[in-house]
Amino acid sequence: MNTEIEYVLPMDIEKRSFEIIESELPHPLDPELAPIIKRVIHTTADFEYADTLYFSPQVREKALAALQKGATIVTDTTMALSGINKPALERHGCRAVSFIGDPAVAEAAKKNGTTRSREAVDRAAELPGPLIFAVGNAPTALLRIRELILEGRLDPALVIGVPVGFVNVVQAKELLIETGVPCIVARGRKGGSNVAAAICNALLYLQGRPGV
Amino acid sequence: MNTEIEYVLPMDIEKRSFEIIESELPHPLDPELAPIIKRVIHTTADFEYADTLYFSPQVREKALAALQKGATIVTDTTMALSGINKPALERHGCRAVSFIGDPAVAEAAKKNGTTRSREAVDRAAELPGPLIFAVGNAPTALLRIRELILEGRLDPALVIGVPVGFVNVVQAKELLIETGVPCIVARGRKGGSNVAAAICNALLYLQGRPGV
Repeated sequence: MNTEIEYVLPMDIEKRSFEIIESELPHPLDPELAPIIKRVIHTTADFEYADTLYFSPQVREKALAALQKGATIVTDTTMALSGINKPALERHGCRAVSFIGDPAVAEAAKKNGTTRSREAVDRAAELPGPLIFAVGNAPTALLRIRELILEGRLDPALVIGVPVGFVNVVQAKELLIETGVPCIVARGRKGGSNVAAAICNALLYLQGRPGV
Repeated sequence: MNTEIEYVLPMDIEKRSFEIIESELPHPLDPELAPIIKRVIHTTADFEYADTLYFSPQVREKALAALQKGATIVTDTTMALSGINKPALERHGCRAVSFIGDPAVAEAAKKNGTTRSREAVDRAAELPGPLIFAVGNAPTALLRIRELILEGRLDPALVIGVPVGFVNVVQAKELLIETGVPCIVARGRKGGSNVAAAICNALLYLQGRPGV
């Protein structure tokens, strides 16, 4: 086993990582979407995402337009929230929130016999737009977003649908895609709060740098 | 593509997920370690961890003993910190901290021409034990922990070494294993803050339930 440490300046580690990712990609990527896909691979060291990430038509432009309008990113977990680059958010006049830990949400879930993830979506749906949902954990959040879209009660600028798991995760992602909402989805079981945050960050790093 | 939603009560989703994981494991697991491995698979939907997780001898007993003594878990990112189950921590009289956002750490990194990850380890090394390090992001944190161990300046109860990445990640993990410190390591490139938090949670859920 090779245990020789490669000498790379801390500031160059990300650059070197992306070079390695580029050199090991299973196939060429759409140049418009490559920075997003490569950042997810950077976060997971999992090249499967080169094949499983789904992007709805023109989603990059739509996402960047929402960020340029000072979007609010709503995450389903505090973990995804904490993974979003706050200085980058602030530079773009955007903000990120999560209602999962909100006592009123827990109260509503108890009262309505539902889940906190579902109630947190309802709470977020009241916010002024543009809204970007970043779901890395709860398929129930994704299903609730879909319901509100179908009922005409929610019109998100973007849904990042990347929950991880074994129960209703694959289905919730496919049902979201079928709505036609602008979305980025990790098809299959894989995903996670880290993936949700990575996609948010990739979009933030793109904004204002359309050629990157 | 199947989009039929399986009806599972929210409280039963985790149980059902673990049943699916159990049924799809590539091979039987050591029963003592299975709850940890299965929780990592639950967090990532990645069965590779059934083969890549390394456990040092008696690490489960050592980790549980540290938790029973009210260990402090030190994470390298706020994301790993936010993924640790706080009620479970509190139930066991343990706590979790991260120094990565500490202004004094940023100051020291600037002054010493090092990294915040490294300085955060030095800061944590001053804490009273037992100490559990949970590293999901920074190989430099792992390398610094190793240095302090080899210099006799740090004696962690456990190191969870699961950084993800492409530069010095594989090497840092192998070098940690070589020290002989009690450790749980995701060999290879994969890992992450989510994996670090999942291992912490798996240990917390085991404590006081040795037969699980």
